[in-house]
Amino acid sequence: MNVKREVPIQSVTVNDPFWSKFQNLVTDVVIPYQEKILGDDIPGVEKSHALANFAIAAGQQEGEFYGMVFQDSDVAKWLEAAAYSLAIKPDVKLEKRVDDIIETIGKAQADDGYLNTYFTIKEPEHRWQNLQECHELYCAGHMMEAAVAYYETSGKDRLLKIMEKMADHIDARFGPDKETGVPGHQEVEIGLMRMYWATGKEKYKKLAQFFIDQRGQDPEYFAKEAEKRGWTHFGMNPVDQKYSQIHAPVREQTTAEGHSVRAVYMYTAMASLAAELDDPSLKKACQVIWENITNKRMYITGGIGSTVQGEAFTIDYDLPNDTVYAETCASVGLIFFARKMLDMDVSNRYADVMELALYNGVLSGMQLDGKRFFYVNPLEVNPGISGKLHNHEHVLPERPGWYACACCPPNVARLLTSLAKYAWGEDEQTIYSHLYLGGTAELNKADVSVVSNYPWEGNIKYTVSPKQEESFALAIRIPGWVKEVDISLNGEKLGKDVMKNGYMYIQRVWQADDVVDLTMELPIRKIYANTAVREDAGQVSIMRGPIVYAFEGVDNGEQLQALRIRKDGNIQVSKEDKNLLENMRVLEVEGLRVKTSQKLYSETRPTSEPLMLTAIPYFTWGNRGLNQMRVWMYEES
Amino acid sequence: MNVKREVPIQSVTVNDPFWSKFQNLVTDVVIPYQEKILGDDIPGVEKSHALANFAIAAGQQEGEFYGMVFQDSDVAKWLEAAAYSLAIKPDVKLEKRVDDIIETIGKAQADDGYLNTYFTIKEPEHRWQNLQECHELYCAGHMMEAAVAYYETSGKDRLLKIMEKMADHIDARFGPDKETGVPGHQEVEIGLMRMYWATGKEKYKKLAQFFIDQRGQDPEYFAKEAEKRGWTHFGMNPVDQKYSQIHAPVREQTTAEGHSVRAVYMYTAMASLAAELDDPSLKKACQVIWENITNKRMYITGGIGSTVQGEAFTIDYDLPNDTVYAETCASVGLIFFARKMLDMDVSNRYADVMELALYNGVLSGMQLDGKRFFYVNPLEVNPGISGKLHNHEHVLPERPGWYACACCPPNVARLLTSLAKYAWGEDEQTIYSHLYLGGTAELNKADVSVVSNYPWEGNIKYTVSPKQEESFALAIRIPGWVKEVDISLNGEKLGKDVMKNGYMYIQRVWQADDVVDLTMELPIRKIYANTAVREDAGQVSIMRGPIVYAFEGVDNGEQLQALRIRKDGNIQVSKEDKNLLENMRVLEVEGLRVKTSQKLYSETRPTSEPLMLTAIPYFTWGNRGLNQMRVWMYEES
Repeated sequence: MNVKREVPIQSVTVNDPFWSKFQNLVTDVVIPYQEKILGDDIPGVEKSHALANFAIAAGQQEGEFYGMVFQDSDVAKWLEAAAYSLAIKPDVKLEKRVDDIIETIGKAQADDGYLNTYFTIKEPEHRWQNLQECHELYCAGHMMEAAVAYYETSGKDRLLKIMEKMADHIDARFGPDKETGVPGHQEVEIGLMRMYWATGKEKYKKLAQFFIDQRGQDPEYFAKEAEKRGWTHFGMNPVDQKYSQIHAPVREQTTAEGHSVRAVYMYTAMASLAAELDDPSLKKACQVIWENITNKRMYITGGIGSTVQGEAFTIDYDLPNDTVYAETCASVGLIFFARKMLDMDVSNRYADVMELALYNGVLSGMQLDGKRFFYVNPLEVNPGISGKLHNHEHVLPERPGWYACACCPPNVARLLTSLAKYAWGEDEQTIYSHLYLGGTAELNKADVSVVSNYPWEGNIKYTVSPKQEESFALAIRIPGWVKEVDISLNGEKLGKDVMKNGYMYIQRVWQADDVVDLTMELPIRKIYANTAVREDAGQVSIMRGPIVYAFEGVDNGEQLQALRIRKDGNIQVSKEDKNLLENMRVLEVEGLRVKTSQKLYSETRPTSEPLMLTAIPYFTWGNRGLNQMRVWMYEES
Repeated sequence: MNVKREVPIQSVTVNDPFWSKFQNLVTDVVIPYQEKILGDDIPGVEKSHALANFAIAAGQQEGEFYGMVFQDSDVAKWLEAAAYSLAIKPDVKLEKRVDDIIETIGKAQADDGYLNTYFTIKEPEHRWQNLQECHELYCAGHMMEAAVAYYETSGKDRLLKIMEKMADHIDARFGPDKETGVPGHQEVEIGLMRMYWATGKEKYKKLAQFFIDQRGQDPEYFAKEAEKRGWTHFGMNPVDQKYSQIHAPVREQTTAEGHSVRAVYMYTAMASLAAELDDPSLKKACQVIWENITNKRMYITGGIGSTVQGEAFTIDYDLPNDTVYAETCASVGLIFFARKMLDMDVSNRYADVMELALYNGVLSGMQLDGKRFFYVNPLEVNPGISGKLHNHEHVLPERPGWYACACCPPNVARLLTSLAKYAWGEDEQTIYSHLYLGGTAELNKADVSVVSNYPWEGNIKYTVSPKQEESFALAIRIPGWVKEVDISLNGEKLGKDVMKNGYMYIQRVWQADDVVDLTMELPIRKIYANTAVREDAGQVSIMRGPIVYAFEGVDNGEQLQALRIRKDGNIQVSKEDKNLLENMRVLEVEGLRVKTSQKLYSETRPTSEPLMLTAIPYFTWGNRGLNQMRVWMYEES
């Protein structure tokens, strides 16, 4: 049973006041810029050498490998983003460039199917000896995703064939009766599942299943591997089992542990397999871990991974705002996981988190000009401390340029260019609208066009044109935070009886140009954290729709910690727009400024003066120079 | 001009319900235990080998040097504490042990006066090449302090002669027209000043002055030294100038920087010299740094040094409670600094901080049984995080046993056994009572006996018996936090006109058994931090007298961050005493417990229920097993 309910990227035309801007940014700025980075065409930026590595491995140029052991994955992620970009916005020059690169990749592949420029150029004798550190399966997984993406959007199968050969090579080596290795950084499982869906070849699904089932069967696997090979690449600790989630078989894992990106990539593959295999124990594991993340280990922005040490999850409710990690890639991965949970179980519990991470923890990763990126997405920055003091070095208060380890920017690029996959779903009975994405989706059962000014306004208009006269449902997610919602069909109000797990199921024999109008109020909401979250004690954050708001010094003056949000004060949409982004809603918040003695410590009771505070969408923070920022603000209690 | 106004330890007999307990703990538990540690007589404890190193260097036993390069200083600090202990409580066996150790030290000294077991045993060719890392001057300074302490308390000069020979050796090497080195860890300057006061030899003062004046003249001194010698001991960064306070000449330093213990030891020596030399620019530098520390970089407990990285000061108002360093030794050093400021300028601005650090940041370092010690003195601990998670590893939630680097326990021991130096002062015109220390002080001008149940009660009775009929002042400090104070002489109330810089100067021709009664109210005070201190925002702490209070989970239940202190609630001394310490005052505080939704994030406005909270003196925390602790508590606002 193929339960993948995603729709093809190329069947969706995005025309959305919010998302079109970001997609254009990716197609017009991010992808061309990243191409230049990969080709070392931008002076003054840390050398990538990623394309050169392929050319060298292909025998097209002389030279040595340069870069991280996983440098190939930068090319793979860029190719995947470029594939989606071409589906959104055809570009002959870009397509030619993609095809040329794919040709080089083909030439860099060994006769036995092996593809990895680091080992091919530098240490051919060390192939497959160091799964813990060396990312061979990780790079393969990303290239499989690129291959499938380009095949699906363009119909061209050159890269798909290359990666089939590589997948066959891997399959020849690893499996229940072969080597029982597992990847140090999960990703190949996702790539293999996509290869399976694209090619229908069961062996790829079985290989993905093997890697998932095998993981954690021997928690000492990496320690033994390290001892066996007797060499190290990074000096990684082979006995830190949780870092790579090999501390227990995946079905026995009940908490999100270790490196957060590795974790969510694994959970994504687990959810894909659980749905595909209808495997109850694997489904249960996914649900338990999902609950652990979203109820105990997630920032309000959809950020995950609260410590820089190992870029990892820590313990329940440990969510420091200023020493946070919350890597952009981890929120991207949480979206992947959520999307696969939706394939398994259609519920707004998954879609709401997917939306939350998308509008907040992921978008915050990118400067509004598309030129600079955050890896770490703090909920509090303090100039002079953030990015400077011990344990704050990683929390940059402004987005820097390209990193040597360039994982996040291409991850954002491939996500934003493939939004259609996350917005829509379709199965035999139902079209699912998980996210509100303006434009037209040409689906199997109908063309559906959507007009929306979400997330700023809550009215969404769906026009359905069925392909043939048949009864099917249009299931539209209603976010859990919505209290007042009107939904009407051709002007006639529908009842709530069609709501199931947070989706409105409108079942009928659809007629051409049937119109569904969804009208949700987007009240401004004050959000409180569970008292177990020490770092949010006494504080409140503000949301409107899926948007988390933040307070910056440039709007609110110094010492944001001295501000209070009034307990019963008014919060309203401001007339000012701050010129950061078209349509963006700025909030005016009734507040107080607390004043204390000038002494360090004093008996003088603080006084306070009323003032109006300004809040901007969290994802737009850090676009107006170095200044303080907070998401959580103390409340007058 | 000798401006040192300290009084000799042996002239003061302590008989104080509070301090006698701690002094007895040091004499009866800490010093004997530490002696065993130094002699490697305690199984299961990290080997010290410190006494063995001296015996080996002395040719009394075979073996190799073991321990840190500054291992000798453990013996020195213990000897200093033992010298004071013998003055408090004669002990023939201990005295014999001290004398034997001193004999061994004498034999370990080279013919040219050089004394350091590490270099003598292990690397004689490397003497004096690595001032940055190798602590030769530091160890010498501590041994000078021990030598002076034992000479002053016992009259025996064997160790003093040894250290004169070492001081002469140093003097022959370093100076304006000789080598211009400065110590990596300041301390020898303090030792040299004490040698000067004990022997009257100007050259020791001049050498101390040289080390202070020379410091920072060449900020690259350590970098050049490292390059010149071409070897390293620890791999310390020779270009981190602030760590060792060589970034600028000391008179140009305006903020407390770098390793906090090095810093305060240096400031102590600077203040000693400033007073001694009546040097206005050095005085000014001391005052500016004092203000920087106490108005911008000090915890409410008198703890200093807010980061584990380099055990250092950071920036103004950066005072995290849970990732704090606040080393016990740094608070001990702040007391040294304060005491020297008092010699320069009698004012309660110095004595109040001295008292604050003593009753809070220092006493908290020791378990109430004297057997375990904190190096790091947090203002917040959270089991599961403190001592475990990244950047919290150093913040232990319970006092551990003896450390390999054993600086703090002997530092506490020597401070608590020499309290008389801090409590009393005397010059030609005046007897100063800086701290209220019950017992009798036999001073030059008078015997003064003090009866006090401070810090629990605020009435102190002084009985003065003058040595001869003359007019002099008894100057009694009145803490800055005192609002209501009555002071009477032989039952007759005195006016406030005799108050100057926080001291009551009672000038008269004293008669035998003149009685001064000081009665201060000890109201319970709510203390607020400057809004610039992010980590204390919205919070309040509670003091009574000099005692900072803390809240522990064992008394107040889980999630201390969910508790609120009522804005206008009552706080009173409880009838319960918790059996932690005789006389100790426990506080009952009207509070609230906030309850939120069980969800991680929720729109549900928190509710609260009233409850009574219990606060205990901060220094007694961590004596009842692993539990949460906070000094700063959220206030209902």
